[in-house]
Amino acid sequence: MLKNIKRILIANRGEIAVRAIRSIRELGGESVAIYSEGDKNSIHKDLADISVCIGGPHPSQSYLNIPAILSAVDLVHADAVYPGYGFLAENPNFAAICEKSNIKFIGPSSKTLKLTGDKAAAREAAKKANVPIIPGSPPVDQLKDALEVASKIGYPVLIKAAAGGGGRGMRVVHNDQELTRLLPLAQREAESAFGDKTVYIEKFIENPKHIEIQILADEYGNIIHLGERECSVQRRHQKLIEESPSPFIDEKIRKEMGEAAVRFAKAVGFTGAGTVEFIVDKDKNFYFIEMNGRIQVEHPVTEMVTGIDIVSWQLRIADGQKLTLSQDDVKINGHAIEFRINAEDPETFTPSPGKIERLYLPGGYGVRVDTHIYQGYQIPPYYDSLMAKLIVWGKTREETIRRAKRALQEFKIEGLKTTIPFHLKILEHKEFLKGTYTTSLVDREFLK
Amino acid sequence: MLKNIKRILIANRGEIAVRAIRSIRELGGESVAIYSEGDKNSIHKDLADISVCIGGPHPSQSYLNIPAILSAVDLVHADAVYPGYGFLAENPNFAAICEKSNIKFIGPSSKTLKLTGDKAAAREAAKKANVPIIPGSPPVDQLKDALEVASKIGYPVLIKAAAGGGGRGMRVVHNDQELTRLLPLAQREAESAFGDKTVYIEKFIENPKHIEIQILADEYGNIIHLGERECSVQRRHQKLIEESPSPFIDEKIRKEMGEAAVRFAKAVGFTGAGTVEFIVDKDKNFYFIEMNGRIQVEHPVTEMVTGIDIVSWQLRIADGQKLTLSQDDVKINGHAIEFRINAEDPETFTPSPGKIERLYLPGGYGVRVDTHIYQGYQIPPYYDSLMAKLIVWGKTREETIRRAKRALQEFKIEGLKTTIPFHLKILEHKEFLKGTYTTSLVDREFLK
Repeated sequence: MLKNIKRILIANRGEIAVRAIRSIRELGGESVAIYSEGDKNSIHKDLADISVCIGGPHPSQSYLNIPAILSAVDLVHADAVYPGYGFLAENPNFAAICEKSNIKFIGPSSKTLKLTGDKAAAREAAKKANVPIIPGSPPVDQLKDALEVASKIGYPVLIKAAAGGGGRGMRVVHNDQELTRLLPLAQREAESAFGDKTVYIEKFIENPKHIEIQILADEYGNIIHLGERECSVQRRHQKLIEESPSPFIDEKIRKEMGEAAVRFAKAVGFTGAGTVEFIVDKDKNFYFIEMNGRIQVEHPVTEMVTGIDIVSWQLRIADGQKLTLSQDDVKINGHAIEFRINAEDPETFTPSPGKIERLYLPGGYGVRVDTHIYQGYQIPPYYDSLMAKLIVWGKTREETIRRAKRALQEFKIEGLKTTIPFHLKILEHKEFLKGTYTTSLVDREFLK
Repeated sequence: MLKNIKRILIANRGEIAVRAIRSIRELGGESVAIYSEGDKNSIHKDLADISVCIGGPHPSQSYLNIPAILSAVDLVHADAVYPGYGFLAENPNFAAICEKSNIKFIGPSSKTLKLTGDKAAAREAAKKANVPIIPGSPPVDQLKDALEVASKIGYPVLIKAAAGGGGRGMRVVHNDQELTRLLPLAQREAESAFGDKTVYIEKFIENPKHIEIQILADEYGNIIHLGERECSVQRRHQKLIEESPSPFIDEKIRKEMGEAAVRFAKAVGFTGAGTVEFIVDKDKNFYFIEMNGRIQVEHPVTEMVTGIDIVSWQLRIADGQKLTLSQDDVKINGHAIEFRINAEDPETFTPSPGKIERLYLPGGYGVRVDTHIYQGYQIPPYYDSLMAKLIVWGKTREETIRRAKRALQEFKIEGLKTTIPFHLKILEHKEFLKGTYTTSLVDREFLK
């Protein structure tokens, strides 16, 4: 039960707002929903104890509108803010304003958010904490230096614009000849795209796995991890299916990754629930990518296999409570897989907003659904297309996959296109069944 | 996975038909739904691989119509029948016809069903297996013998018509004077009601608890129990809420009851999934009442705390597979409570059939819903009023109760009356919270 925090404003919408209301209520708190003019028919507004309309349908008018949100906090006398994921969840500025206004921001400190949000600083922190990072160079200017770096870290390497993002100025290079030819091209591209020709050279990890570690840390220095989630079923870096445990890594690597994640979280002074993300190569070498200092969409798979309610712990930690779990209390029981049911065309993944004309949710043994949709609900076009998360648990991965198939088969959503047919196809794919799939699976096999 | 049985006809409807379809599909079998003309809009018919209309809406025309069901079995070449609960589930005649026709009846043998269905024979079997039964007499005729029996077993005692049922000819007696006065009255009432004036005298257990043990037994003599379910929240012998473990009994009694149940099931040659029912007095003495040789409505609470899928095991046992679980594999993890959401007035419990105009099912961590209803579904007036089972799990009973409250609060069914407000009231009652409640709670406190 909550002791210090009483009334919590949820600065989010959709299924994660519903998720937060559930845990707040179970812990005896009061929930305040905010909603935009585009979310007038949203269930999170009906489920909360109090609800406040904060502005227009576009995120900038409402869920990203800091002054409007702070006015709502003031209006209802909320003493804490639950940020969820997306929107303002990792905005150090928002967290800092909350800190200054004596509103408890349910997440890490603004200082930690600033550090984890800065790629170079986070990489530096990982290095210091002895957490493996992708081998790479300081900025290189001369071909001679580039060739030396590449020979040291080994081909293939990636040339990356220092100021860049979104793949521009990026080149995969397999040998000295290619590097000689492509370095000047990449430098010119970087200059024209970002006004800065500086490039780095980094080890290129082919066909990696994306595996992340869930962290819980209280405000008294107690910190544990809840094992990993394998999130390699992605379409253009958008996760579609997540599972725990990973079918790929073994006990030894699991332990090493968990300990590395805890070292990183400690190094950045992390508190609350967060995720340390790694890529893992085919030889099971793992490399730090980033830390997300917030709840993840895919947190339920960890809850299903550990029996630990992560959102409740976020609230209790923010309430000033001590983590009563030790690392030894964390036992992985069975296997869980989450499927993101999006309002999208299952072939092209283009959004398919519309009205839900008919709905039957799957249920029964080993099946959990987290959703904000209902029959008659109109999916607004302003936000992401996530409609529901289907989470399936079984004693083994095989049992979970069989159960997932039947749950997806009985899930009926009429009136718009959904990703359900895509998930049913993935469940037949041999790489998924073997557990050897990598982040290239969807783009390679399902988007022709 | 199923190896011998392939196509299973489900001789039932509603949520238990949906439950069976789920496990059949997960084990790689094919499901056949039968439905009455009153169930044309039932979801079990849409979820099954095959569906067959077998007759009129009244149970006698369809779900109790053995020739019609056997015709359907024949028509679709089903090789097994799943009977569920109610209807023909414990009809030894139906089981015997299946046996003779080489159709696998998914339950115990007709011989066992005949024995467990005969109260006197079952009591005799319990006695022989050293399972405690309610102390009582052979039929008594003379007052002298009645007084002797009563003094031996101790007041209060119950006078019960031998041929009776439904409370007629029954009298609670507290001392010799009352017995002297009431015996002739009870005998006359028995004679006029049943044409047989024979009565028994039995120990009267005041304010008992109703606690049952779940049994799993394969066809090779392996037999285990899965702990108990406390089912004392009843209205006129209709269970409304069930939980596991019982908040009342301790480890010692739990073990004794489990072992007694296993002894009884062994003694009657039981196979499949079944339940041995006991009443438990305030001093934790337990007495055998009966065995139900079928799945129970409340089986999910046991599934939630043991992680054992009972319906899957019913199918696997009928398929000729060996029970791979030993008694030591059964570990109770946390606490689960089931709430029966009926289409009934929550004050008077009168049925409230009608159309579901709006529906939002609760979900999230620790919440399971087993249901066949959907928005727009018309509850037919011909069958029982069970619409959904809400099953809630938590680490402790307190956590489970808090979670149950929020799940009941977010459960929205519009268009008819439901038992949800009743459940919310029970969750506030001090006897329920303490776990000391008995079978008299609802009739005493909620039906004034």
